[in-house]
Amino acid sequence: MEALFIQAKQAGKSVAGLSDDFRNDVLRAVADELVSSKEELLRANAEDLARMDPASPLYDRLMLTDARIDAIAADMRNVASLPSPLGRVLLDRVLPNGLQLRKVAVPFGVIGVIYEARPNVTLDVFSLCFKSGNACVLKGGKDADASNRAAVAVVQRVLAARGVAPAAATLLPATHEAANALLNAVGYVDVVIPRGGRRLIDFVRDNARIPCIETGAGVVNTYFDAAGDLEIGKAIVFNAKTRRVSVCNALDCLIVHSARLQDLPALCAPLAAKNVTIYADERSFAVLKDVYPLLCPATPDSFGTEFMDYKMVIRTVDSLQEAMDHIAQYGSGHSESIVTDDPAAAAAFQAGVDAACVYVNAPTSFTDGAQFGLGAEIGISTQKLGARGPMGLEALTTYKWLITGHGQTRP
Amino acid sequence: MEALFIQAKQAGKSVAGLSDDFRNDVLRAVADELVSSKEELLRANAEDLARMDPASPLYDRLMLTDARIDAIAADMRNVASLPSPLGRVLLDRVLPNGLQLRKVAVPFGVIGVIYEARPNVTLDVFSLCFKSGNACVLKGGKDADASNRAAVAVVQRVLAARGVAPAAATLLPATHEAANALLNAVGYVDVVIPRGGRRLIDFVRDNARIPCIETGAGVVNTYFDAAGDLEIGKAIVFNAKTRRVSVCNALDCLIVHSARLQDLPALCAPLAAKNVTIYADERSFAVLKDVYPLLCPATPDSFGTEFMDYKMVIRTVDSLQEAMDHIAQYGSGHSESIVTDDPAAAAAFQAGVDAACVYVNAPTSFTDGAQFGLGAEIGISTQKLGARGPMGLEALTTYKWLITGHGQTRP
Repeated sequence: MEALFIQAKQAGKSVAGLSDDFRNDVLRAVADELVSSKEELLRANAEDLARMDPASPLYDRLMLTDARIDAIAADMRNVASLPSPLGRVLLDRVLPNGLQLRKVAVPFGVIGVIYEARPNVTLDVFSLCFKSGNACVLKGGKDADASNRAAVAVVQRVLAARGVAPAAATLLPATHEAANALLNAVGYVDVVIPRGGRRLIDFVRDNARIPCIETGAGVVNTYFDAAGDLEIGKAIVFNAKTRRVSVCNALDCLIVHSARLQDLPALCAPLAAKNVTIYADERSFAVLKDVYPLLCPATPDSFGTEFMDYKMVIRTVDSLQEAMDHIAQYGSGHSESIVTDDPAAAAAFQAGVDAACVYVNAPTSFTDGAQFGLGAEIGISTQKLGARGPMGLEALTTYKWLITGHGQTRP
Repeated sequence: MEALFIQAKQAGKSVAGLSDDFRNDVLRAVADELVSSKEELLRANAEDLARMDPASPLYDRLMLTDARIDAIAADMRNVASLPSPLGRVLLDRVLPNGLQLRKVAVPFGVIGVIYEARPNVTLDVFSLCFKSGNACVLKGGKDADASNRAAVAVVQRVLAARGVAPAAATLLPATHEAANALLNAVGYVDVVIPRGGRRLIDFVRDNARIPCIETGAGVVNTYFDAAGDLEIGKAIVFNAKTRRVSVCNALDCLIVHSARLQDLPALCAPLAAKNVTIYADERSFAVLKDVYPLLCPATPDSFGTEFMDYKMVIRTVDSLQEAMDHIAQYGSGHSESIVTDDPAAAAAFQAGVDAACVYVNAPTSFTDGAQFGLGAEIGISTQKLGARGPMGLEALTTYKWLITGHGQTRP
């Protein structure tokens, strides 16, 4: 395994040295090759699908189709069209002693990604890492292994044809040993990003000896304040809960101010059309029980749950502070929202809530790199060291200090 | 121990909510209180010193004196005078859908620091963390425990008098159990910074389940290029090696281009006055053996050693590329320098060397937060995630995304 890491590190150096134009050309060539290799990719994907229960919710995520390959290629061409995140001068000053000091954005070198059963991640990750001048070391899920190997074969074919080290896209075996080796690749891999569920993230965080960026897990709250606008609240809760239930920015807990309990039936009414099950605390249960069709009592476990489903819990509070305390206790630092027409409450919420993305009168469904105008996204960081929130190309860079003198010495 | 972490987290929230002026007042009050508590601090320090062998190199680092306490207080007042790193707006845009998107610098929350036998670190770390709106959880060395406890008692006295939670400066017991608890304080401590030698850094990196910033270890090279200016080279090598040998930016390996071997005696001559022992590779040994007094043959172990002493190794290379390969193999990504009058060589070196600080015609002794104009420094990061190189106040902040709308929803 170490040989693979050494090759990836060398490949990272050579990718860093390419021009942005060259890297973009390579990405467009890979996109073309993906489209013209559909048969090969679909055949490999069929092998993976044959081993998966079609009733599993993973089946659809694992599946490649003609249209999905076109979409992956289009995303790759889009990445090629973005401005380079490299070479940005973050600081440039001449010190009193005449030394010129510059802080310049550079690639990490090698980025490791551990993920589950979505073969499109393989190609998304490659394109973002390559565009930002990095090699990537990929450890995909066993379920998608044939698809991932086929995808990387296509990428490496293009890299080799263009004279780029194929190890710039390194796929590890889909084994636990490979995952452990990656998490221990001190000196070879500069950062590792897990993409997947809570269990995967915890495994990576607990075992990585290389720097790690935790992504994705989202226990997401929306607080309907005493001064909340009912129409805005209805729209935001509905959008945040039902737009896509399987994504990390989806709403899990509606917190409602007790002064607005009488509006709760109207606030929740649109959810019934999507068959959202509501787990209600005692006070909210009392006002919903005769009007909302899919109602259960909340249990202590309901709070702090990332449902990933048409399910939501309701908590009643008596103050903004109690809402923020609830978020501090149960939220995962991903995305939190307040619905209010009170500017003081909005300001206190944005100042006091410790999360990557804090919304006022907008749904958490906007937490997304493309929505934020970052062009693309490799994940949503829920930690504070390094990138936080949606991670675009800039999040795949670090910087170095360049100091130029003419023989000055330090007293 | 968990109770301490919970208190620190709550204290962090309250420190974040203070105004910069208030925080500065508190720091100045702590500085005053340190000066008027000298007797108490020196008595505690005497307890620690009594347990330490006066011949140990650690003895001097452990010692507090009247003048050193004044210096610590002066540093704290200086930190109070710096601009706040908080509230900086890193991005502010209105998206096409009318959402206002801002990215704003905020404190981490709780910063953990594990360090060795220097009691001044306790107060330096507190002042930087407090200024940047964070609580700190400190785990000092056993040798300095009485001094650290006395220092934190002074700080907490002032905090309490000003109505700030004393847990904003939390000192853990000087035990292994405390260190382990800190490294596992997931959900309470946002980042941990080791300050000390290689062994401490490795221990933290290998055991932390919370994000960690590796600092300090510096295997530092300077490359005297075929086109190097001899006078500049002499000054830089002398300054980088002998200014202070016990610091991480001190020179460890001089790499010399074979075309300039005849200049090596002149390049090294000043070092003899400081009794620097040179470990020379075969070719450099041959030219130095009749002229340099303190000469030994290099062994394979000499390369990659952080000497922390009046010792230096010399490696002869035949090209810039070979010098960069040597640095990639043996350097620690801290500080690297080239002496050259060839702009192409300088540019290739700054582009190709993967280190936090890359110098041209200047000594690595400049790698320091104050020298870089950062005002103060909590350490020098040798990793790429988060801060890299000298870490000032901004390195103790993260950011959050604040999104404000009026009921927009995502299609």
